[in-house]
Parts: sequence; C-alpha cells; structure tokens
Amino acid sequence: MEIEVLEGVFDANEIIARENRALLDKKGAFMVNLMASPGAGKTSFIMKTLEGVKETLECAVIEGDIAGKVDSERIAAAGVQAIQINTGGSCHLEAKQVNTALGRLELDGVDLVIVENVGNLVCPAEFKIGEDIKVMILSVAEGHDKPLKYPLMFSESHVLIVNKIDLIPYTDFDIDALEETVRRMNPEIDIFRMSCRTGEGVAGWIDWLTARVKG
Amino acid sequence: MEIEVLEGVFDANEIIARENRALLDKKGAFMVNLMASPGAGKTSFIMKTLEGVKETLECAVIEGDIAGKVDSERIAAAGVQAIQINTGGSCHLEAKQVNTALGRLELDGVDLVIVENVGNLVCPAEFKIGEDIKVMILSVAEGHDKPLKYPLMFSESHVLIVNKIDLIPYTDFDIDALEETVRRMNPEIDIFRMSCRTGEGVAGWIDWLTARVKG
Repeated sequence: MEIEVLEGVFDANEIIARENRALLDKKGAFMVNLMASPGAGKTSFIMKTLEGVKETLECAVIEGDIAGKVDSERIAAAGVQAIQINTGGSCHLEAKQVNTALGRLELDGVDLVIVENVGNLVCPAEFKIGEDIKVMILSVAEGHDKPLKYPLMFSESHVLIVNKIDLIPYTDFDIDALEETVRRMNPEIDIFRMSCRTGEGVAGWIDWLTARVKG
Repeated sequence: MEIEVLEGVFDANEIIARENRALLDKKGAFMVNLMASPGAGKTSFIMKTLEGVKETLECAVIEGDIAGKVDSERIAAAGVQAIQINTGGSCHLEAKQVNTALGRLELDGVDLVIVENVGNLVCPAEFKIGEDIKVMILSVAEGHDKPLKYPLMFSESHVLIVNKIDLIPYTDFDIDALEETVRRMNPEIDIFRMSCRTGEGVAGWIDWLTARVKG
C-alpha cells in the first residue's frame, strides 16, 4: 500500500509538501503561498492582509528571502508570529524549508499561515510547499505583457493581485488587456485590483480570503 | 597542461562561457549580459540603446525568455539581428544556450552583442555566459531595499541602470539611499539614472557604452 500511495509522488519535495499539508490540516490552518517578482509589493501586501484580518483570524508568517531579515522583523513588530528563512543562493522555497519553519511556529490556534516566497516569477511556481492556494502579485509597473513571458506562474496561481494600481495613470499599463490574457490562460483565477499604498481594493481581498479560510 | 588549465574551471558552464569569450574576441565583439526582474524595462532599455548607438556600432541581440518571442520580433522590426532563446522552464540563461545563439548570428562586423537574460534577480547572476560586462536594471517601482535582498546581483554587476525615474514622484523610492547601499556593496559599480519612457538619462549611458565598446 505504501508503495502504491507513493507512486504518484514525483520527488522528495512533493512528499514533504504532503507532510506540511497533513500538519496544517491537523492544526486546522490554511496556508497561502505568496509569489511575485522582486518589488511587486509582497511584504506590503502581507501587512495589509494582517491588518485586515486581525479581528477574525489568528495569523503566522513565514518569510523567504535570499538574505536579510527586514521583512520578518517588520511583521513581528506588528505583533504577528514571523519566521525568516534565508535560502542562501536559492531562488525559491522548497517544502523542506517550510517544514522546518512550520516546526518552529506555535500553530495551535493559528487559522492562516502566509508564506512569502523568494521574489521570482519562475521557479517558485514549480515547487509545492503544502499550500492551500497560490497567490501571485503583479505590479502594474512590470507591464501587462508578463503572462506571456512567465506563463507557469499565471496558470498555476489561484489568485492574482494586480498591485500598485495608483501608478496606472503614469504608465502604459492596460489592465483590461492583462486580465483578458490571464483569464485565457487560467479561467478559474480570481483577480483583485489593488493599491497597498493607498488601500484601494484591499477590502474585497480580505472578504474573499476570510471566507476561504473560514469555509 | 590541459589539466592545469582546467583546474580553475568550476564547471561545464564556465568552459563554454570561455569558448563564447574566445569567439567574441576573435570577432572583435563586446558582449553585455543584461539582467533584471520581470518588468524592470529590459527590452525598452535595449531599444533605446540600439537607437542611441545606431550610427556608431553594429549590434546584435540575443533574447532569453521562458516562453514567447515578442521581444526578438520587436528588435528585428527595428532592423537589428535578433535571436530568441526560449529556456522552457529555466530561470536563467546558461553559456551553452548563448553559444548556440552566437553560432546562429552573423558576427562579422558586429561590435556589440546584447544578451537579455531571463527576468530574475537571482540565478542569472550565478551563470557566466562569456560577457564583457554585466548590466542590471532596477525599476524604481521595485523599491530601494532590493540590494539587501538580492545581494549577489548588485555586487556582481558592473553597471546599474535605475530605470523609470519618471515614477519617483509617485512612489516612496529613495534614490540616494539606494545608491549609497549599492556603492557600499560594490564600490566599482557605475550607476545611471534613467527613464526609458521619457528618454531622460539615456545619453550618458550611450556615451559610456560607446567608449567601452570602442576602447
């Protein structure tokens, strides 16, 4: 039976991703794998999300970066459990690193774990970490042509956050063209237009996320 | 002797990078390895560069993307030789792919080869391709904290282009803080402030590049 169960498992990463999944299920926690280019606004988005759900959900954050710990310090300063993973040179998080971080968090009572992956539109999409959903952020400053260049990220994500919409008037970004391209690649995706800087569009995401986590 | 020569060579990539270097030296061509996050403006920067040097330098472009060929078509439409490399899933170019592309270009008479690497601030910095210089672009929309998170890219690059400076008034980007951080990591780096959209700052880069290629 053990062999049969493992037949569909492609590699060690997937085995550990399933372990993470089982641990989160046991604790009743929902996990978001948050991915984006460098500078798309992942940490600001996490801060806005934590603020939006603070009355309803108990949260923890795992911060993945090549180097540095400014992000986890910023989150811990807001009173939320945060663990920093430094990948050294690696351009993505693997399930094993997330497993170690989950082991260091106090998960009892936690409803939502947000994992900030390394800033990269390529490899993070290929490595499962045991998440419930993959959420990606695209900043309008990156341009509306990105889905054609980084197709896996856009087709694998459950949610697309189009961030920094306050900059649209100063760019050539065509948000309708972007959404059309993305929906053609991934008809099931949920798209939220947002500015973490001004707060526009955050409420809709908070309602959606809260319903998913509680549901 | 052959063994001794190879002792300092770390891997197959470096051997092929040296082959590329030897080929370019033989042809008298200078090669730029251009790296940046997705959407920092690599292709627009290449278009501005080609326009700026069109009277003085004969150019060719190698476009690296996960998928798609919009970039090479855009460059070919401007009358410049362009080869598209699609890496499939890979998040960086390796010397071998550039070697194949160089073999398909007509290099006689070419002064400058620009290689647009895959949009990624991590792995491209680790793989030599036989370039003369590494040039990286940071868009102001990405934030001035990026050097601390992606240190290898900033410390390996010979030139930093700070792009989209026309957006600075609409962001919290601190360009002096950025430059100070980068120069602390990499005192030799040349930094150009630019907007490929408005053309501001392009001329200084063109003068610098032309002198380097001709020098």
